[in-house]
Amino acid sequence: MSERDEIEAIQQLKYRYMRAVDLKLWDELHDTFWPEVVCSYGDGTHSFEGRDAVLGFLRDSLGGNLVTLHQVHHPQIEITGPNTARGRWYLVDYVINAGPDRPLMKGRSTLLGAAFYHDQYEKRDGEWRILSTGYERTFEQFDDLPESSEVHSRWDAETG
Amino acid sequence: MSERDEIEAIQQLKYRYMRAVDLKLWDELHDTFWPEVVCSYGDGTHSFEGRDAVLGFLRDSLGGNLVTLHQVHHPQIEITGPNTARGRWYLVDYVINAGPDRPLMKGRSTLLGAAFYHDQYEKRDGEWRILSTGYERTFEQFDDLPESSEVHSRWDAETG
Amino acid sequence: MSERDEIEAIQQLKYRYMRAVDLKLWDELHDTFWPEVVCSYGDGTHSFEGRDAVLGFLRDSLGGNLVTLHQVHHPQIEITGPNTARGRWYLVDYVINAGPDRPLMKGRSTLLGAAFYHDQYEKRDGEWRILSTGYERTFEQFDDLPESSEVHSRWDAETG
Repeated sequence: MSERDEIEAIQQLKYRYMRAVDLKLWDELHDTFWPEVVCSYGDGTHSFEGRDAVLGFLRDSLGGNLVTLHQVHHPQIEITGPNTARGRWYLVDYVINAGPDRPLMKGRSTLLGAAFYHDQYEKRDGEWRILSTGYERTFEQFDDLPESSEVHSRWDAETG
Repeated sequence: MSERDEIEAIQQLKYRYMRAVDLKLWDELHDTFWPEVVCSYGDGTHSFEGRDAVLGFLRDSLGGNLVTLHQVHHPQIEITGPNTARGRWYLVDYVINAGPDRPLMKGRSTLLGAAFYHDQYEKRDGEWRILSTGYERTFEQFDDLPESSEVHSRWDAETG
Repeated sequence: MSERDEIEAIQQLKYRYMRAVDLKLWDELHDTFWPEVVCSYGDGTHSFEGRDAVLGFLRDSLGGNLVTLHQVHHPQIEITGPNTARGRWYLVDYVINAGPDRPLMKGRSTLLGAAFYHDQYEKRDGEWRILSTGYERTFEQFDDLPESSEVHSRWDAETG
Protein backbone atom coordinates (compact mmCIF):
# COMPACT_ATOMS: atom_id res chain seq x y z
CA MET A 1 0.00 0.00 0.00
CA SER A 2 1.12 3.54 -0.70
CA GLU A 3 1.65 5.98 2.17
CA ARG A 4 -1.55 7.75 1.11
CA ASP A 5 -3.47 4.47 1.38
CA GLU A 6 -2.04 3.83 4.85
CA ILE A 7 -3.11 7.29 5.97
CA GLU A 8 -6.56 6.72 4.53
CA ALA A 9 -6.84 3.41 6.41
CA ILE A 10 -5.91 5.16 9.65
CA GLN A 11 -8.52 7.85 9.06
CA GLN A 12 -11.16 5.17 8.52
CA LEU A 13 -10.10 3.57 11.80
CA LYS A 14 -10.63 6.88 13.61
CA TYR A 15 -14.06 7.33 12.04
CA ARG A 16 -15.09 3.82 13.15
CA TYR A 17 -13.88 4.67 16.66
CA MET A 18 -15.88 7.91 16.79
CA ARG A 19 -19.03 6.31 15.39
CA ALA A 20 -18.77 3.46 17.93
CA VAL A 21 -18.45 5.96 20.79
CA ASP A 22 -21.49 8.01 19.80
CA LEU A 23 -23.64 4.98 18.93
CA LYS A 24 -22.47 3.11 22.07
CA LEU A 25 -21.30 0.15 19.97
CA TRP A 26 -18.92 -1.27 22.56
CA ASP A 27 -17.96 -4.37 20.56
CA GLU A 28 -16.99 -2.27 17.55
CA LEU A 29 -15.14 0.10 19.85
CA HIS A 30 -13.21 -2.87 21.30
CA ASP A 31 -11.93 -3.71 17.83
CA THR A 32 -10.36 -0.29 17.31
CA PHE A 33 -7.88 -0.76 20.19
CA TRP A 34 -4.84 -2.98 20.67
CA PRO A 35 -4.96 -4.80 24.04
CA GLU A 36 -2.26 -2.62 25.65
CA VAL A 37 -3.83 0.69 24.56
CA VAL A 38 -3.22 3.72 26.75
CA CYS A 39 -5.80 6.52 26.88
CA SER A 40 -5.76 9.91 28.48
CA TYR A 41 -8.92 11.99 28.24
CA GLY A 42 -9.63 15.39 29.71
CA ASP A 43 -6.05 16.58 30.01
CA GLY A 44 -4.94 13.47 31.84
CA THR A 45 -7.52 13.59 34.64
CA HIS A 46 -8.91 10.37 33.20
CA SER A 47 -6.06 8.03 32.22
CA PHE A 48 -6.34 4.32 31.63
CA GLU A 49 -4.05 1.48 30.64
CA GLY A 50 -5.28 -1.55 28.78
CA ARG A 51 -8.28 -2.07 26.60
CA ASP A 52 -10.55 -3.39 29.36
CA ALA A 53 -9.91 -0.36 31.56
CA VAL A 54 -10.49 2.05 28.69
CA LEU A 55 -13.68 0.35 27.57
CA GLY A 56 -14.93 0.19 31.15
CA PHE A 57 -14.44 3.92 31.58
CA LEU A 58 -16.13 4.77 28.29
CA ARG A 59 -19.12 2.51 29.02
CA ASP A 60 -19.55 4.01 32.47
CA SER A 61 -19.14 7.63 31.48
CA LEU A 62 -20.91 7.61 28.09
CA GLY A 63 -23.44 4.81 28.46
CA GLY A 64 -27.13 4.90 29.28
CA ASN A 65 -29.11 7.67 27.66
CA LEU A 66 -26.37 10.29 27.58
CA VAL A 67 -26.29 12.02 24.19
CA THR A 68 -22.80 12.51 22.81
CA LEU A 69 -21.39 14.02 19.64
CA HIS A 70 -17.69 13.56 18.90
CA GLN A 71 -16.44 14.76 15.54
CA VAL A 72 -12.80 14.99 14.48
CA HIS A 73 -11.35 17.25 11.84
CA HIS A 74 -8.12 18.47 10.26
CA PRO A 75 -6.31 15.09 10.23
CA GLN A 76 -2.53 15.41 10.37
CA ILE A 77 -1.32 11.81 10.05
CA GLU A 78 2.34 10.89 9.86
CA ILE A 79 3.71 7.44 9.03
CA THR A 80 6.63 7.00 11.42
CA GLY A 81 7.78 3.48 10.51
CA PRO A 82 6.79 0.42 8.51
CA ASN A 83 3.98 -0.34 10.98
CA THR A 84 3.67 2.77 13.11
CA ALA A 85 2.04 6.15 12.72
CA ARG A 86 0.95 9.13 14.74
CA GLY A 87 -1.96 11.45 14.24
CA ARG A 88 -3.29 14.78 15.35
CA TRP A 89 -6.98 15.65 15.06
CA TYR A 90 -9.08 18.63 16.08
CA LEU A 91 -12.04 17.40 18.13
CA VAL A 92 -15.31 19.14 18.80
CA ASP A 93 -17.62 17.42 21.24
CA TYR A 94 -21.05 18.12 22.61
CA VAL A 95 -22.76 16.18 25.37
CA ILE A 96 -26.32 16.41 26.65
CA ASN A 97 -27.40 14.96 29.95
CA ALA A 98 -31.16 15.42 29.82
CA GLY A 99 -31.63 13.06 32.78
CA PRO A 100 -30.59 13.08 36.45
CA ASP A 101 -27.09 13.68 37.80
CA ARG A 102 -24.31 11.33 36.63
CA PRO A 103 -20.80 10.83 37.98
CA LEU A 104 -19.11 13.21 35.53
CA MET A 105 -22.02 15.43 34.58
CA LYS A 106 -24.88 16.96 36.51
CA GLY A 107 -28.50 16.58 35.44
CA ARG A 108 -30.14 18.76 32.79
CA SER A 109 -26.83 20.12 31.56
CA THR A 110 -24.71 20.30 28.43
CA LEU A 111 -21.00 20.35 27.66
CA LEU A 112 -19.45 21.91 24.58
CA GLY A 113 -15.72 21.49 24.11
CA ALA A 114 -12.81 21.28 21.74
CA ALA A 115 -9.44 19.58 21.93
CA PHE A 116 -6.43 18.42 19.96
CA TYR A 117 -6.08 14.65 19.88
CA HIS A 118 -2.66 13.00 19.78
CA ASP A 119 -2.81 9.35 18.75
CA GLN A 120 -0.39 6.56 18.06
CA TYR A 121 -1.37 3.76 15.73
CA GLU A 122 0.19 0.40 15.03
CA LYS A 123 -0.36 -2.06 12.19
CA ARG A 124 -0.37 -5.77 13.02
CA ASP A 125 -1.22 -8.49 10.52
CA GLY A 126 -2.22 -5.79 8.07
CA GLU A 127 -4.65 -4.02 10.42
CA TRP A 128 -4.24 -0.55 11.92
CA ARG A 129 -5.51 -0.01 15.46
CA ILE A 130 -5.08 2.58 18.20
CA LEU A 131 -2.10 2.09 20.52
CA SER A 132 -2.46 5.32 22.48
CA THR A 133 -4.85 8.23 22.39
CA GLY A 134 -5.45 11.38 24.35
CA TYR A 135 -6.25 15.01 23.96
CA GLU A 136 -5.54 18.45 25.29
CA ARG A 137 -8.53 20.73 25.62
CA THR A 138 -8.64 24.22 24.22
CA PHE A 139 -11.88 24.86 26.12
CA GLU A 140 -14.87 23.34 27.87
CA GLN A 141 -18.17 25.13 28.42
CA PHE A 142 -20.73 23.71 30.85
CA ASP A 143 -24.29 24.99 30.69
CA ASP A 144 -27.62 24.25 32.24
CA LEU A 145 -30.05 22.89 29.69
CA PRO A 146 -32.66 25.66 29.29
CA GLU A 147 -36.08 24.77 30.70
CA SER A 148 -37.63 25.23 27.27
CA SER A 149 -35.13 22.85 25.58
CA GLU A 150 -36.67 19.84 23.95
CA VAL A 151 -34.23 16.99 23.36
CA HIS A 152 -35.02 13.85 21.38
CA SER A 153 -32.50 11.07 21.00
CA ARG A 154 -32.33 7.46 19.94
CA TRP A 155 -31.87 6.60 23.61
CA ASP A 156 -35.10 8.20 24.77
CA ALA A 157 -36.69 4.79 25.31
CA GLU A 158 -33.99 4.08 27.86
CA THR A 159 -34.84 7.21 29.83
CA GLY A 160 -37.73 5.30 31.31
CA MET B 1 -9.75 6.48 -12.52
CA SER B 2 -8.39 4.78 -9.43
CA GLU B 3 -10.73 3.80 -6.61
CA ARG B 4 -9.28 6.65 -4.56
CA ASP B 5 -10.15 9.11 -7.32
CA GLU B 6 -13.70 7.77 -7.54
CA ILE B 7 -14.11 8.21 -3.79
CA GLU B 8 -12.73 11.73 -4.03
CA ALA B 9 -15.21 12.55 -6.81
CA ILE B 10 -18.08 11.30 -4.65
CA GLN B 11 -16.91 13.41 -1.72
CA GLN B 12 -16.83 16.48 -3.96
CA LEU B 13 -20.39 15.67 -5.04
CA LYS B 14 -21.51 15.60 -1.41
CA TYR B 15 -19.81 18.92 -0.70
CA ARG B 16 -21.56 20.52 -3.70
CA TYR B 17 -24.87 19.14 -2.40
CA MET B 18 -24.32 20.56 1.10
CA ARG B 19 -23.21 23.95 -0.17
CA ALA B 20 -26.23 24.15 -2.48
CA VAL B 21 -28.57 23.37 0.42
CA ASP B 22 -27.12 26.02 2.75
CA LEU B 23 -26.82 28.68 0.02
CA LYS B 24 -30.28 27.80 -1.38
CA LEU B 25 -28.81 27.20 -4.86
CA TRP B 26 -31.68 25.06 -6.14
CA ASP B 27 -30.33 24.67 -9.67
CA GLU B 28 -26.99 23.40 -8.39
CA LEU B 29 -28.84 21.13 -6.00
CA HIS B 30 -30.87 19.74 -8.90
CA ASP B 31 -27.66 18.65 -10.62
CA THR B 32 -26.52 16.52 -7.67
CA PHE B 33 -29.50 14.13 -7.99
CA TRP B 34 -30.47 11.51 -10.57
CA PRO B 35 -34.13 11.91 -11.65
CA GLU B 36 -35.35 8.85 -9.71
CA VAL B 37 -33.60 9.84 -6.46
CA VAL B 38 -35.18 8.69 -3.19
CA CYS B 39 -34.70 10.74 -0.02
CA SER B 40 -35.62 10.10 3.56
CA TYR B 41 -34.92 12.85 6.05
CA GLY B 42 -35.70 12.97 9.73
CA ASP B 43 -35.84 9.22 10.32
CA GLY B 44 -38.25 8.64 7.49
CA THR B 45 -40.91 11.12 8.61
CA HIS B 46 -40.10 13.07 5.44
CA SER B 47 -39.64 10.68 2.51
CA PHE B 48 -39.77 11.61 -1.15
CA GLU B 49 -39.40 9.84 -4.47
CA GLY B 50 -38.15 11.60 -7.56
CA ARG B 51 -36.04 14.69 -7.96
CA ASP B 52 -38.94 17.10 -8.32
CA ALA B 53 -40.54 15.93 -5.08
CA VAL B 54 -37.25 16.11 -3.21
CA LEU B 55 -36.40 19.57 -4.52
CA GLY B 56 -39.92 20.79 -3.76
CA PHE B 57 -39.64 19.65 -0.15
CA LEU B 58 -36.20 21.21 0.32
CA ARG B 59 -37.28 24.54 -1.21
CA ASP B 60 -40.38 24.66 0.98
CA SER B 61 -38.72 23.64 4.22
CA LEU B 62 -35.35 25.41 3.85
CA GLY B 63 -36.20 28.38 1.65
CA GLY B 64 -36.91 32.00 2.53
CA ASN B 65 -34.74 33.48 5.24
CA LEU B 66 -34.23 30.32 7.30
CA VAL B 67 -30.58 29.99 8.29
CA THR B 68 -29.20 26.48 7.90
CA LEU B 69 -25.82 24.89 8.50
CA HIS B 70 -25.27 21.31 7.28
CA GLN B 71 -21.76 19.92 7.58
CA VAL B 72 -20.76 16.31 6.96
CA HIS B 73 -17.76 14.52 8.39
CA HIS B 74 -16.04 11.14 8.69
CA PRO B 75 -16.70 9.95 5.12
CA GLN B 76 -16.86 6.16 4.80
CA ILE B 77 -17.28 5.61 1.06
CA GLU B 78 -17.34 2.16 -0.49
CA ILE B 79 -17.22 1.43 -4.22
CA THR B 80 -19.72 -1.41 -4.69
CA GLY B 81 -19.55 -1.92 -8.46
CA PRO B 82 -18.13 -0.39 -11.63
CA ASN B 83 -20.64 2.50 -11.41
CA THR B 84 -22.13 2.23 -7.94
CA ALA B 85 -21.05 3.25 -4.47
CA ARG B 86 -22.44 3.79 -1.02
CA GLY B 87 -21.43 6.26 1.63
CA ARG B 88 -21.85 6.97 5.29
CA TRP B 89 -21.33 10.47 6.71
CA TYR B 90 -21.70 12.00 10.14
CA LEU B 91 -23.88 15.10 9.87
CA VAL B 92 -24.13 18.01 12.24
CA ASP B 93 -26.81 20.56 11.45
CA TYR B 94 -27.95 23.80 12.98
CA VAL B 95 -31.00 25.78 11.94
CA ILE B 96 -32.15 29.23 13.02
CA ASN B 97 -35.65 30.50 12.43
CA ALA B 98 -35.34 34.14 13.50
CA GLY B 99 -38.69 34.96 11.88
CA PRO B 100 -42.31 33.89 12.43
CA ASP B 101 -43.59 30.32 12.67
CA ARG B 102 -42.95 28.00 9.71
CA PRO B 103 -44.44 24.59 8.87
CA LEU B 104 -41.60 22.57 10.41
CA MET B 105 -40.19 25.07 12.87
CA LYS B 106 -41.72 27.59 15.20
CA GLY B 107 -40.69 31.23 15.26
CA ARG B 108 -37.63 32.51 17.13
CA SER B 109 -36.23 29.02 17.65
CA THR B 110 -33.16 26.94 16.84
CA LEU B 111 -32.48 23.29 16.10
CA LEU B 112 -29.19 21.53 16.75
CA GLY B 113 -28.90 17.94 15.61
CA ALA B 114 -26.67 15.14 14.44
CA ALA B 115 -27.25 12.11 12.26
CA PHE B 116 -25.60 9.38 10.24
CA TYR B 117 -26.27 9.69 6.52
CA HIS B 118 -26.56 6.60 4.32
CA ASP B 119 -26.25 7.41 0.63
CA GLN B 120 -26.17 5.51 -2.63
CA TYR B 121 -24.41 6.99 -5.61
CA GLU B 122 -24.39 6.04 -9.27
CA LYS B 123 -22.07 7.04 -12.10
CA ARG B 124 -23.58 7.70 -15.52
CA ASP B 125 -21.62 9.02 -18.48
CA GLY B 126 -18.70 9.58 -16.15
CA GLU B 127 -20.60 11.64 -13.59
CA TRP B 128 -21.43 10.60 -10.02
CA ARG B 129 -24.77 11.73 -8.59
CA ILE B 130 -26.98 10.83 -5.64
CA LEU B 131 -29.41 7.94 -6.16
CA SER B 132 -30.69 7.71 -2.61
CA THR B 133 -30.00 9.55 0.60
CA GLY B 134 -31.31 9.56 4.13
CA TYR B 135 -30.20 9.73 7.69
CA GLU B 136 -30.84 8.40 11.16
CA ARG B 137 -30.66 10.97 13.92
CA THR B 138 -28.62 10.50 17.06
CA PHE B 139 -30.29 13.56 18.59
CA GLU B 140 -32.24 16.74 17.98
CA GLN B 141 -32.35 19.68 20.38
CA PHE B 142 -34.97 22.40 19.92
CA ASP B 143 -34.47 25.69 21.74
CA ASP B 144 -36.08 29.08 21.90
CA LEU B 145 -33.79 31.74 20.50
CA PRO B 146 -32.82 33.84 23.55
CA GLU B 147 -34.30 37.34 23.54
CA SER B 148 -30.82 38.82 23.61
CA SER B 149 -29.66 36.80 20.56
CA GLU B 150 -28.60 38.86 17.60
CA VAL B 151 -28.62 36.96 14.31
CA HIS B 152 -27.27 38.31 11.03
CA SER B 153 -27.49 36.31 7.83
CA ARG B 154 -27.15 36.79 4.11
CA TRP B 155 -30.93 36.44 3.91
CA ASP B 156 -31.68 39.34 6.24
CA ALA B 157 -32.88 41.49 3.35
CA GLU B 158 -35.56 38.90 2.67
CA THR B 159 -36.88 39.15 6.23
CA GLY B 160 -38.77 42.24 5.13
CA MET C 1 4.02 15.12 -7.03
CA SER C 2 0.62 14.02 -8.28
CA GLU C 3 -2.28 16.47 -8.28
CA ARG C 4 -3.78 14.52 -5.38
CA ASP C 5 -0.54 14.99 -3.40
CA GLU C 6 -0.54 18.74 -4.12
CA ILE C 7 -4.12 19.02 -2.90
CA GLU C 8 -3.23 17.04 0.21
CA ALA C 9 -0.29 19.38 0.89
CA ILE C 10 -2.60 22.40 0.58
CA GLN C 11 -5.09 20.85 3.00
CA GLN C 12 -2.30 20.26 5.52
CA LEU C 13 -1.31 23.93 5.13
CA LYS C 14 -4.88 25.00 5.95
CA TYR C 15 -4.95 22.73 9.02
CA ARG C 16 -1.68 24.23 10.28
CA TYR C 17 -3.15 27.69 9.76
CA MET C 18 -6.32 26.86 11.72
CA ARG C 19 -4.43 25.19 14.55
CA ALA C 20 -2.07 28.16 14.82
CA VAL C 21 -5.03 30.57 15.04
CA ASP C 22 -6.81 28.67 17.80
CA LEU C 23 -3.63 27.94 19.79
CA LYS C 24 -2.36 31.51 19.26
CA LEU C 25 0.90 30.22 17.76
CA TRP C 26 1.80 33.44 15.95
CA ASP C 27 5.17 32.22 14.64
CA GLU C 28 3.60 29.13 13.09
CA LEU C 29 0.85 31.31 11.68
CA HIS C 30 3.47 33.59 10.12
CA ASP C 31 4.87 30.64 8.19
CA THR C 32 1.55 29.84 6.50
CA PHE C 33 1.47 33.20 4.65
CA TRP C 34 3.51 34.65 1.78
CA PRO C 35 4.72 38.19 2.58
CA GLU C 36 2.25 39.90 0.22
CA VAL C 37 -0.79 37.96 1.50
CA VAL C 38 -4.18 39.67 1.30
CA CYS C 39 -6.90 38.81 3.82
CA SER C 40 -10.52 39.77 4.04
CA TYR C 41 -12.46 38.60 7.06
CA GLY C 42 -16.03 39.30 8.03
CA ASP C 43 -17.34 40.07 4.54
CA GLY C 44 -14.61 42.59 3.84
CA THR C 45 -15.17 44.76 6.90
CA HIS C 46 -11.71 43.65 8.04
CA SER C 47 -9.30 43.64 5.09
CA PHE C 48 -5.52 43.67 5.31
CA GLU C 49 -2.61 43.64 2.88
CA GLY C 50 0.72 42.15 3.76
CA ARG C 51 1.69 39.54 6.31
CA ASP C 52 2.55 41.99 9.07
CA ALA C 53 -0.82 43.72 8.84
CA VAL C 54 -2.69 40.42 8.82
CA LEU C 55 -0.76 39.02 11.76
CA GLY C 56 -1.18 42.25 13.67
CA PHE C 57 -4.95 42.13 13.23
CA LEU C 58 -5.19 38.47 14.24
CA ARG C 59 -3.02 38.98 17.35
CA ASP C 60 -5.08 41.98 18.43
CA SER C 61 -8.49 40.49 17.78
CA LEU C 62 -7.85 36.86 18.84
CA GLY C 63 -5.11 37.22 21.43
CA GLY C 64 -5.26 37.26 25.20
CA ASN C 65 -7.67 34.85 26.81
CA LEU C 66 -10.30 34.86 24.06
CA VAL C 67 -11.42 31.30 23.30
CA THR C 68 -11.73 30.56 19.60
CA LEU C 69 -12.71 27.50 17.59
CA HIS C 70 -12.20 27.58 13.81
CA GLN C 71 -12.85 24.36 11.93
CA VAL C 72 -12.96 24.02 8.15
CA HIS C 73 -14.77 21.34 6.18
CA HIS C 74 -15.75 20.23 2.69
CA PRO C 75 -12.46 21.14 0.96
CA GLN C 76 -12.88 21.95 -2.73
CA ILE C 77 -9.31 22.51 -3.92
CA GLU C 78 -8.45 23.18 -7.54
CA ILE C 79 -4.95 23.25 -9.00
CA THR C 80 -4.99 26.20 -11.40
CA GLY C 81 -1.38 26.17 -12.65
CA PRO C 82 1.99 24.56 -12.04
CA ASN C 83 2.38 26.52 -8.79
CA THR C 84 -1.04 27.99 -8.11
CA ALA C 85 -4.27 26.71 -6.63
CA ARG C 86 -7.53 27.95 -5.20
CA GLY C 87 -9.66 26.48 -2.48
CA ARG C 88 -13.10 26.72 -1.01
CA TRP C 89 -13.84 25.58 2.55
CA TYR C 90 -16.89 25.65 4.77
CA LEU C 91 -15.97 27.26 8.08
CA VAL C 92 -17.74 26.97 11.40
CA ASP C 93 -16.41 29.19 14.16
CA TYR C 94 -17.27 29.72 17.79
CA VAL C 95 -15.79 32.41 20.02
CA ILE C 96 -16.17 32.92 23.77
CA ASN C 97 -15.29 36.16 25.46
CA ALA C 98 -15.64 35.22 29.13
CA GLY C 99 -13.82 38.37 30.18
CA PRO C 100 -14.48 42.12 29.90
CA ASP C 101 -15.38 44.00 26.72
CA ARG C 102 -12.92 43.81 23.80
CA PRO C 103 -12.71 45.88 20.61
CA LEU C 104 -14.68 43.43 18.46
CA MET C 105 -16.65 41.58 21.10
CA LYS C 106 -18.42 42.61 24.26
CA GLY C 107 -17.80 40.95 27.60
CA ARG C 108 -19.45 37.70 28.67
CA SER C 109 -20.66 36.92 25.16
CA THR C 110 -20.33 34.27 22.46
CA LEU C 111 -20.33 34.23 18.68
CA LEU C 112 -21.36 31.29 16.54
CA GLY C 113 -20.96 31.64 12.80
CA ALA C 114 -20.40 29.94 9.49
CA ALA C 115 -18.84 31.07 6.24
CA PHE C 116 -17.42 29.93 2.93
CA TYR C 117 -13.69 30.59 2.61
CA HIS C 118 -12.12 31.45 -0.73
CA ASP C 119 -8.36 31.05 -0.72
CA GLN C 120 -5.54 31.34 -3.21
CA TYR C 121 -2.36 29.38 -2.67
CA GLU C 122 1.04 29.58 -4.29
CA LYS C 123 3.96 27.16 -4.28
CA ARG C 124 7.47 28.60 -4.06
CA ASP C 125 10.60 26.48 -3.68
CA GLY C 126 8.36 23.45 -3.21
CA GLU C 127 6.28 24.94 -0.39
CA TRP C 128 2.60 25.89 -0.54
CA ARG C 129 1.50 28.97 1.39
CA ILE C 130 -1.54 31.26 1.47
CA LEU C 131 -1.53 34.16 -1.00
CA SER C 132 -5.03 35.42 -0.31
CA THR C 133 -7.83 34.36 1.98
CA GLY C 134 -11.26 35.61 2.88
CA TYR C 135 -14.75 34.44 3.57
CA GLU C 136 -18.39 35.27 3.07
CA ARG C 137 -20.62 34.60 6.06
CA THR C 138 -23.82 32.63 5.85
CA PHE C 139 -24.70 33.73 9.39
CA GLU C 140 -23.44 35.11 12.68
CA GLN C 141 -25.22 34.68 16.00
CA PHE C 142 -24.19 36.79 19.00
CA ASP C 143 -25.36 35.72 22.44
CA ASP C 144 -24.82 36.71 26.01
CA LEU C 145 -22.99 34.01 27.93
CA PRO C 146 -25.59 32.65 30.37
CA GLU C 147 -24.88 33.50 34.01
CA SER C 148 -24.72 29.80 34.85
CA SER C 149 -22.15 29.06 32.12
CA GLU C 150 -18.87 27.70 33.34
CA VAL C 151 -16.01 28.10 30.87
CA HIS C 152 -12.56 26.57 31.29
CA SER C 153 -9.81 27.17 28.79
CA ARG C 154 -6.09 26.80 28.45
CA TRP C 155 -5.86 30.59 28.74
CA ASP C 156 -7.56 30.80 32.12
CA ALA C 157 -4.29 31.60 33.84
CA GLU C 158 -4.04 34.72 31.71
CA THR C 159 -7.47 35.94 32.84
CA GLY C 160 -5.81 37.02 36.06
